[in-house]
Amino acid sequence: MTDKLTGTEREAVLERLSQHGWDLDGDRDAITRTFKFKDFNAAFGFMARVALWAEKLDHHPEWSNVYNRVTVTLTTHDAGGLSAKDVTLADHIDALA
Amino acid sequence: MTDKLTGTEREAVLERLSQHGWDLDGDRDAITRTFKFKDFNAAFGFMARVALWAEKLDHHPEWSNVYNRVTVTLTTHDAGGLSAKDVTLADHIDALA
Repeated sequence: MTDKLTGTEREAVLERLSQHGWDLDGDRDAITRTFKFKDFNAAFGFMARVALWAEKLDHHPEWSNVYNRVTVTLTTHDAGGLSAKDVTLADHIDALA
Repeated sequence: MTDKLTGTEREAVLERLSQHGWDLDGDRDAITRTFKFKDFNAAFGFMARVALWAEKLDHHPEWSNVYNRVTVTLTTHDAGGLSAKDVTLADHIDALA
């Protein structure tokens, strides 16, 4: 079981991630960000790099891709919302983008 | 410019693809199919193989992935609907799944 982020820790994380383009999807307690690349090759290359990290962290994004755009949504199902795992993966994704 | 499928050719293709699990999304004149795999590794492996084919065909899916599930939607933007390109890509995807 992973703990859901709460209180000031949660607020600080959301504030920091929002500066990197992550939006809170309040309906699900998830964060989402859309990345735009030059073309499909670049978009899928990014996805492949994220996939390797996600598998290593054993925490996976929900994501969609339309040509050069990738929309990533992060939440932790067994926590029922945002957890430290989402923050770790978001930071890795930002570093890769 | 790619021609949209029409008439009996379109009907025959939709009938054949529906037997492989593709559903028509009438709102957009697109076809969609959801694939379920053992885990994320298998799901993303499938996506990587499809991505290589899509790039080769220069025709790309709209798709989403949540852990072991991949939902693929095919349509041809410059035809304003289903074209022979979608059928070719659907057949490749079925062969890879």
